[in-house]
Amino acid sequence: MKMKTFLPSVVTLFFLVKVDGRTEVTAPLEMLQPVPFTAVKITDSFWSARQETNRIATIPISFDNLEKSGNLEALRLAAQGATNGSRGPVYRDSDVYKALEAASYSLALHPDPMLDRQLDEIIATLAAAQQPDGYLNSYFIVQEPTKRWTNLRDSHELYCAGHLIEAAVANFQATGKTNFLAVATKLADHIDSVFGPEPKRLGYPGHPEIELALVKLWRATGERRYFELARFFIEHRGQHYFATEHHTPPEKYDGTYWLDDVPICDQDKIKGHAVRAAYLMSGATDVARETGDPALLAMLDRVWRNTTEKNMYLTGGIGPSKHNEGFTTDYDLPNLTAYQETCATIALAQWSARMGLLYGDAKYADVVERGLYNGMLAAVSQDGKKFFYVNPLESAGNHHRQGWFSTACCPPNAARTIAALGGYAYATGSNSLWVNLYVQGQMEAQIGGQPIRLDVKTDYPWDGKVILKPLLKSAANFALHLRVPGWCEGATVRVNGKAIFAPEFTRGYIVLSRLWKNGDVVELNLPMPVQRVAANLNVTADRGLLAIQRGPLVYCVEQCDQTAPVASLVLPLDAELKVEKSGLFGGVAVIRGIGEQTGNSDSSQALYHHAVVPSKRTEITAVPYFVWDNRQAGPMKVWLPVAPTTP
Amino acid sequence: MKMKTFLPSVVTLFFLVKVDGRTEVTAPLEMLQPVPFTAVKITDSFWSARQETNRIATIPISFDNLEKSGNLEALRLAAQGATNGSRGPVYRDSDVYKALEAASYSLALHPDPMLDRQLDEIIATLAAAQQPDGYLNSYFIVQEPTKRWTNLRDSHELYCAGHLIEAAVANFQATGKTNFLAVATKLADHIDSVFGPEPKRLGYPGHPEIELALVKLWRATGERRYFELARFFIEHRGQHYFATEHHTPPEKYDGTYWLDDVPICDQDKIKGHAVRAAYLMSGATDVARETGDPALLAMLDRVWRNTTEKNMYLTGGIGPSKHNEGFTTDYDLPNLTAYQETCATIALAQWSARMGLLYGDAKYADVVERGLYNGMLAAVSQDGKKFFYVNPLESAGNHHRQGWFSTACCPPNAARTIAALGGYAYATGSNSLWVNLYVQGQMEAQIGGQPIRLDVKTDYPWDGKVILKPLLKSAANFALHLRVPGWCEGATVRVNGKAIFAPEFTRGYIVLSRLWKNGDVVELNLPMPVQRVAANLNVTADRGLLAIQRGPLVYCVEQCDQTAPVASLVLPLDAELKVEKSGLFGGVAVIRGIGEQTGNSDSSQALYHHAVVPSKRTEITAVPYFVWDNRQAGPMKVWLPVAPTTP
Repeated sequence: MKMKTFLPSVVTLFFLVKVDGRTEVTAPLEMLQPVPFTAVKITDSFWSARQETNRIATIPISFDNLEKSGNLEALRLAAQGATNGSRGPVYRDSDVYKALEAASYSLALHPDPMLDRQLDEIIATLAAAQQPDGYLNSYFIVQEPTKRWTNLRDSHELYCAGHLIEAAVANFQATGKTNFLAVATKLADHIDSVFGPEPKRLGYPGHPEIELALVKLWRATGERRYFELARFFIEHRGQHYFATEHHTPPEKYDGTYWLDDVPICDQDKIKGHAVRAAYLMSGATDVARETGDPALLAMLDRVWRNTTEKNMYLTGGIGPSKHNEGFTTDYDLPNLTAYQETCATIALAQWSARMGLLYGDAKYADVVERGLYNGMLAAVSQDGKKFFYVNPLESAGNHHRQGWFSTACCPPNAARTIAALGGYAYATGSNSLWVNLYVQGQMEAQIGGQPIRLDVKTDYPWDGKVILKPLLKSAANFALHLRVPGWCEGATVRVNGKAIFAPEFTRGYIVLSRLWKNGDVVELNLPMPVQRVAANLNVTADRGLLAIQRGPLVYCVEQCDQTAPVASLVLPLDAELKVEKSGLFGGVAVIRGIGEQTGNSDSSQALYHHAVVPSKRTEITAVPYFVWDNRQAGPMKVWLPVAPTTP
Repeated sequence: MKMKTFLPSVVTLFFLVKVDGRTEVTAPLEMLQPVPFTAVKITDSFWSARQETNRIATIPISFDNLEKSGNLEALRLAAQGATNGSRGPVYRDSDVYKALEAASYSLALHPDPMLDRQLDEIIATLAAAQQPDGYLNSYFIVQEPTKRWTNLRDSHELYCAGHLIEAAVANFQATGKTNFLAVATKLADHIDSVFGPEPKRLGYPGHPEIELALVKLWRATGERRYFELARFFIEHRGQHYFATEHHTPPEKYDGTYWLDDVPICDQDKIKGHAVRAAYLMSGATDVARETGDPALLAMLDRVWRNTTEKNMYLTGGIGPSKHNEGFTTDYDLPNLTAYQETCATIALAQWSARMGLLYGDAKYADVVERGLYNGMLAAVSQDGKKFFYVNPLESAGNHHRQGWFSTACCPPNAARTIAALGGYAYATGSNSLWVNLYVQGQMEAQIGGQPIRLDVKTDYPWDGKVILKPLLKSAANFALHLRVPGWCEGATVRVNGKAIFAPEFTRGYIVLSRLWKNGDVVELNLPMPVQRVAANLNVTADRGLLAIQRGPLVYCVEQCDQTAPVASLVLPLDAELKVEKSGLFGGVAVIRGIGEQTGNSDSSQALYHHAVVPSKRTEITAVPYFVWDNRQAGPMKVWLPVAPTTP
């Protein structure tokens, strides 16, 4: 397992944070370093199976589809100096880049010379397509060579560049080769020559993404200019540049969709296009991490809370509306018409993971876990060959995964996320190790200059028992932070067989500070009963409804498992629900219970009717949300009525 | 009790009705005649108390307020030929007319020479203010004499004229005097000289009302021109006259608010301003009754069903939105922000009563009853001195009745409705007597030329037992139709002590056809258990919630009756609810039961939380909705959660 060196930036800062109008000084805060996915080996049956399917099915299929759809051909035409013939939307290159990123991650975990060669060929095409000044975008090179950087609002040029950079950093990180990174730095240098403070020009992307990519590039290369350019894009946002660009009169300009309505530090809630918003906030978090700007930090805290406390689906996704692929009003979370784009679930997880590194609070990893184990995972079929773009929490039976999309942002986004999953699991501080996700396998890191390996044994998410064993060259004093998930009550921990009563518990983590020695064994127990979840009363779509969750997994009922119609099912509060290991999909745990079936379908058209207690009991079987739509098509629901008050 | 003669129009027709695109020929339909309120004497403790409060408090207060607010002064200034000094909104005269209508009805039931004189004085002022050509509107006479009939969209001229006509007909009906009717006919003649087919001009009111008033005037006077003018206004509506009037370009014109978007027969659902919509439909029903126009009848059926099946509150009101005082989308029936203007509840009852006379179907009287016993009745305080304009089904404790309003349409509208309540109770066919509301007292009518009196004894709405005794000069063969309310299951009937098994039951009425003799006794029993009501699943605002209803009365919980906070109350499906006669407000029946109190208020801010079964049981006391906000102010709810799924 190769270890790449990233820029160390362990900084201790006092933050002045404005929260709800008050200025607060936080405790001296040590920002955490993520343990890169390359240093995390996953050996469980849960994620490793998904990673294997990703490697053998999703990634090859992605390249096949990018060939069929013309995305790769468009890049070859650009490389050949063609002036026509290319096809696909203006953002087509980004789909290739995300597939390259996914393949690079996969390569790091599973060496594959053929795949490596395939990637190098595409990278060579990119290098050939790149213009002498560093510019690279197949659409503008072939179709609109005179229109470069003239429509930042809609053209996705900076968005595509961002994904190229992310892919290049991933490839460098995975292979140690610099062929792709060279293309990325040349492109970034070009962009840096165009945008920035006077005498360079103002601008920022209609679709954020490059900001976080430039920070990655800075960390991979040490070139500070890339960070400064990311900072420029973030800090200038909200100056109504798109109005200027499109000659929109001020009174007619509404920058909400692009979060260009107010200066970024004045954003008071999440809004606009969900993926754009969360990518922007990720980049802003990266910038704030470095600058410590209190106004930016306060904004991030405010908007993250608004996002996760009033605008997030139970499955960890965001953006209820198809209309703007984004947000409407707080608590508007319809189930049947939920848009919840796959990319938006991923974007929120990315942003939340960054926030968690900033504050060391488990609430951020709670959101990461919710999104990755539910919304993101559901986006790919069990065979890895079909994909959801839109992720409703209820279906009449007519919503299905597709083989590919003309706008193919989601499939490779899920692929890169699954491949690099391990990167979300651990973090380190100067004298601490943080476990955010419980995944069987090994992790390698350095704490206070000393290498440490952690062996983890667990059947999570099916079981809450986790055995952690540090492996050290010599005894070391550090604090092991074990996240107690927000869904968990009654977590217990033993060290070397001895129960630790009332362990230190800080910001959602059990903290075990001691001199760790080889042979130490930590046993964490996270009780995992079946839970009924209710939504805030303000979520009108979920009123009177309950969802089933066990551990991090949100469950749903699919018609193929029921004897009664899904629409008629009622889940009383006192129904006993039992978990049962099944033979489905490699052994997912299903949940069974005796619920009720409403009978009064006569009154289904009436505006008001007598509430009748149904007489018929019926078995209800729920399966994890992430496996839905992998069997016989039919109605699906995450939220079930708690009482038969509705026909 | 004086009996006025109205134009008989008992017509037997075959109707061709288009229902859902199909043309259907209805059975030969005998349209019913309402028994006028003047022929109905109410002697119960329920309505007669409200009528007495109306007479001694609400009506005098209305005239006091109309004086204080300048409405009466404006009419006097018009009478004096003043050219300035008047104040009040453009529709100010209508409030005076509705108060005159209420006072006239009251006078018919309770002779009062002083009130009679007070009315005659105001009528004399009106006569003096009336212009030589018949025009009468204080706003235009004093403030804008050159602008008559130039802004039908906004000026409310025809609306005010309509209310003047309704008041004049009521006064004529109540007193037999023609002083007011003379003003009305002169005004109607003037309007008839302005509007109509070529060479007269096109136009119709922005706020419908005059249509139904002109039909009343036709019936009171026999002058067919008034009917034809009403028909003209109805049948021309939808020609975008308001766009022409205001030079609105066709592409910018949205006539929805005024129901001027499409020709009236093409209306497919209820829309726009609620009161305007329902007054228009009432007038259209009057016109359709006479013309038998199949397209108009089909529209009325279609729109009435849409109104009552998808857009009506449990309390019988309509129009959820403050924004347009009207409709939004089907099933949008929020409780806390319910607008449900008092006038709109009354307007729907008026329209539904008209539909019931057309079709002899009890479903129409169900809506009348729902509105009159709940929404309308709640609009006036128990002391008759304060009024609701807006009628929410939930309150945080800050919504209260007011002494008066600058737009004072609602108080006198409730007053005229309460005074003439008896007019909704009975109808006759050529050989039938129809009982729609069960109110203790007497009714006089003619059936087949023979006078009949019906004595009714009941404690309705507190008890479902109704004793009806026909009093006849000689035995008569006719069909007695007894409405079985939609809320009632298991109604039974006895004639002369003998149970009638499986009585004829047609369109919601038990039909007793026999040779009726003096001394016959009919005993109707309408079982009146406490009922839990649920809303259609599409009503997101009511999901997971239940309401309590007993007989026609919708109940609510007020904080002053509870030990637990209203917000924490849960009403399980299996909680036993008992009815109990109380000493409140002359003896309303309260409903008590053991419910639950949710405890997990900690999680009230969380977006998702574990559903917890609360441990605390608590007594819940519900009172009829119509008495709410008459005691200590506090939170109120009609709909309660059925399970503690929400904090």
